[in-house]
Amino acid sequence: MSILVVGSVAFDAVKTPFGEVTKAIGGSATYFSLSASNFADVRLVAAIGNDFGAKEMAVFDGRAIDTAGMVRMDGETFFWRGEYGYDLNDAKTLETRLNVFEKFRPVVPPSYLDSKVVFLGNIDPELQGEVLSQVKSPELVAADTMNFWIQGKKPELIETLRRVDLLLINESEARMLSGEHNLVMAARNIRALGPKTLVIKRGEYGVLAFTERSSFAAPAYPLESVFDPTGAGDSFAGGLVGYLASCVVRDDSALRRGIILGQVMASFNVEDFSVRRLRSVTTPEIRARFEAFRQLVHFEDLEPASAKTPFPKL
Amino acid sequence: MSILVVGSVAFDAVKTPFGEVTKAIGGSATYFSLSASNFADVRLVAAIGNDFGAKEMAVFDGRAIDTAGMVRMDGETFFWRGEYGYDLNDAKTLETRLNVFEKFRPVVPPSYLDSKVVFLGNIDPELQGEVLSQVKSPELVAADTMNFWIQGKKPELIETLRRVDLLLINESEARMLSGEHNLVMAARNIRALGPKTLVIKRGEYGVLAFTERSSFAAPAYPLESVFDPTGAGDSFAGGLVGYLASCVVRDDSALRRGIILGQVMASFNVEDFSVRRLRSVTTPEIRARFEAFRQLVHFEDLEPASAKTPFPKL
Repeated sequence: MSILVVGSVAFDAVKTPFGEVTKAIGGSATYFSLSASNFADVRLVAAIGNDFGAKEMAVFDGRAIDTAGMVRMDGETFFWRGEYGYDLNDAKTLETRLNVFEKFRPVVPPSYLDSKVVFLGNIDPELQGEVLSQVKSPELVAADTMNFWIQGKKPELIETLRRVDLLLINESEARMLSGEHNLVMAARNIRALGPKTLVIKRGEYGVLAFTERSSFAAPAYPLESVFDPTGAGDSFAGGLVGYLASCVVRDDSALRRGIILGQVMASFNVEDFSVRRLRSVTTPEIRARFEAFRQLVHFEDLEPASAKTPFPKL
Repeated sequence: MSILVVGSVAFDAVKTPFGEVTKAIGGSATYFSLSASNFADVRLVAAIGNDFGAKEMAVFDGRAIDTAGMVRMDGETFFWRGEYGYDLNDAKTLETRLNVFEKFRPVVPPSYLDSKVVFLGNIDPELQGEVLSQVKSPELVAADTMNFWIQGKKPELIETLRRVDLLLINESEARMLSGEHNLVMAARNIRALGPKTLVIKRGEYGVLAFTERSSFAAPAYPLESVFDPTGAGDSFAGGLVGYLASCVVRDDSALRRGIILGQVMASFNVEDFSVRRLRSVTTPEIRARFEAFRQLVHFEDLEPASAKTPFPKL
């Protein structure tokens, strides 16, 4: 099933303790699309500037990504410059130039209007609402947002959230949106706003998810080298929403597998700068890391061990 | 199998956003013993003052806790005063009075000398070493430590760690001890110092464990109300080491179940001030929360779903 995604396509300048890039391809919709296209067809809605040429567009080539909804506008592409310290959980934004994004009013092309799954990337909640209104009969609406909109456009965000099924936000955003420090209580408040399913991202600490029927906790994959966390959240969303789009049954069991696949995609993404790793990752690698996640979190029942295995001292 | 534990028995004054206690029973060995006694016999080594009378000693009554190794010394019992904000991960120490602990040289009673499992609570690494030297032939030595000793007594700590099998420390301590920010690399460095198994505690974010054979990640149990995090780490250690002491086979599988039981005990402990909840918790409650942990982290394989279950929209 196809996913319509709206979000940013951007150039990023990123510095981490392990290196830097000065003008690399980035943007929420870019990371999301590259990640999700491993699982389902993606229909991209975004604005780019004159500086995003054929060479840059090639990042979407050879994948299940439809770029009919990408509009080239006069001016420069959205630009973000940021820096990370050793605590890779916290990005420090040094510069944001909206550029063509400032005047962008997303128009959903006719060929996208029958999309059943929609991902509203982290953009102005009014624009998110406008995109959603154009889609005929979405079955699953997923969305991201951030502190900037929670503080600056709360009424508009609340209005959009009423139509969202699956909200993905980080821990501090969940606290800000709900006014609750305790995440269990925060989740209850946020789910009352509309999204029946809430996924709270905690960076290197993993994910907590809340549905009508259960709660789910998943760790992040412990990596020996994290080069660049930029796009981790959107790679996660791409894995999760991409997988759900591919499922006939979207129950809690599918959600959980999707969350793990999201963590898998995020863990690959942070292994290199920009979208490099997302471009090179293969299906067997994705499946292998899913299996590694199983091993990572597996534990057996309390019933007495069945076999008298050898006794390695702890 | 019996566990010998050495650590503090104390009075705590604790203030959290949800209430306060001014002189409640606390101390690492107290929390550990109450928690571990659900799984194995505990032999306690600690010093108390004149103010820790029969009424206070009753906290150990009716449990598998041997108090023959508790020494009453002239003076007051160890006292700690601390405060927590809404971020319950961070304790702010307002006052520490060592009192009788200042002159305490732990002596292991003859009846404890055959202990096969030892837990060295968070005390001076020299004292930890002295206790360990008195035990005849321990099979499993577990230990805790803290930034204070890592900074102030590193050579002595390193010396003790050579004889430790299972080290339990928190995230920032792991970074400080190893000089590495990345936890996978930090774990490798620390394990090279002696402890074949390292368990890194991350408070409300759960636990990461590293052994020779595998890594394991477990979340903390998401609770709606956390009243007082004091003693969570020692309750965790009590569940883990207590369970391991009860196991004939102490392999990775046992370690993982033990870690979950540790998280179970910690999650109960924080539900009320001081040791109140540890005193009231029952075996069926422990088993039920272990099962709740299974539900919390369970996800199915990627192979296509076997049943066409109903289709609740996410």
